[in-house]
Amino acid sequence: MASPELDALTQALARLPGLGPRSARRAVLHLVKKREGTLEPLLKALEAVSEKLSTCSICGNVDTADPCGICTDPRRDDSAICVVEEVADLWALDRSKLFSGRFHVLGGRLSALDGVRPEDLSIDQLVARIEKGGVDEVVLAMNATLEGQTTAHYLAEQLETFPLRITQLAHGLPVGGELDYLDEGTLAQALRARRPVA
Amino acid sequence: MASPELDALTQALARLPGLGPRSARRAVLHLVKKREGTLEPLLKALEAVSEKLSTCSICGNVDTADPCGICTDPRRDDSAICVVEEVADLWALDRSKLFSGRFHVLGGRLSALDGVRPEDLSIDQLVARIEKGGVDEVVLAMNATLEGQTTAHYLAEQLETFPLRITQLAHGLPVGGELDYLDEGTLAQALRARRPVA
Ligand SMILES: [Zn+2]
Ligand SMILES: [Zn+2]
Repeated sequence: MASPELDALTQALARLPGLGPRSARRAVLHLVKKREGTLEPLLKALEAVSEKLSTCSICGNVDTADPCGICTDPRRDDSAICVVEEVADLWALDRSKLFSGRFHVLGGRLSALDGVRPEDLSIDQLVARIEKGGVDEVVLAMNATLEGQTTAHYLAEQLETFPLRITQLAHGLPVGGELDYLDEGTLAQALRARRPVA
Repeated sequence: MASPELDALTQALARLPGLGPRSARRAVLHLVKKREGTLEPLLKALEAVSEKLSTCSICGNVDTADPCGICTDPRRDDSAICVVEEVADLWALDRSKLFSGRFHVLGGRLSALDGVRPEDLSIDQLVARIEKGGVDEVVLAMNATLEGQTTAHYLAEQLETFPLRITQLAHGLPVGGELDYLDEGTLAQALRARRPVA
């Protein structure tokens, strides 16, 4: 593989999670050998995504439409908002099909270490959504990390003046566990047993 | 991930070896979150490869130039041709940097079961390359499978009228082993101990 184009493709693929340099080489070979069936569809899919990708102006999800498919889905319940740290967490919960309300992506977690302050997260946008009315429950689905829990407590304080049920995912999640790595069973249990924030 | 574009991208990635549906979803998320650093380079790399990909008219390698980088490399030795079944085998041997001659890709192996006959492989092209002169050695680097060895013996017969050293990779390869799955140490040993075909 002396060709600079094939090298560049191998390197681009090797940057994906789950693919090291060796499997990236095998993937390139596969793409090259089954060009019509694999390379062209992947290229078209990437082009379509690249062209349409946008951040949802309502919830912060990343999708190929703005507002995103979740915010515009008429079957979803407007009265509950599940707040997550990252888009990955939204996707993990959405895949589990356990929560039928709307979502809100904070864009991170409060962190003294990383210098992440409340104004760095989309907290104002969350408050604005709640001020519009119609929301009965906010589920705080932060990671079970110190920073995630600090963020949940901060949010609970900010929202305490609203007539809302504020809940958080039941603990029992593995300590230090990142939401989007959990299996659906653990997620389901944590969501079903969600409880009001003290 | 309700969006059809993101679903299509996930499915296209899940078809790559080494990526299942779950890791494809994580890869899509990674591409979407680190758009500038990952999605755009991957898209550009795929476009470049898709645009330039061709099969080498001399050796059958797949590359972004025709003739390929190996056939046009002036540092390589014209007097030795290593014959392989598939492009994957050529890449595996080339990566090992153990063979400094040219290559020839047959495009498969003789197989009664799969109905692959000599005229389905690029044997005529190999003979034509040898007839041009200047070739002293042909290394038959077929897989250590029954069909691979049948193919090697057939080729040795076809080439016996030429003033050539015909060698094949030393056995000691794992029985049934596919060349491009072997580690470089095994490949190196097999190549170093290559012997004339009886
Ligand atoms: Zn949205
Ligand atoms: Zn070539």
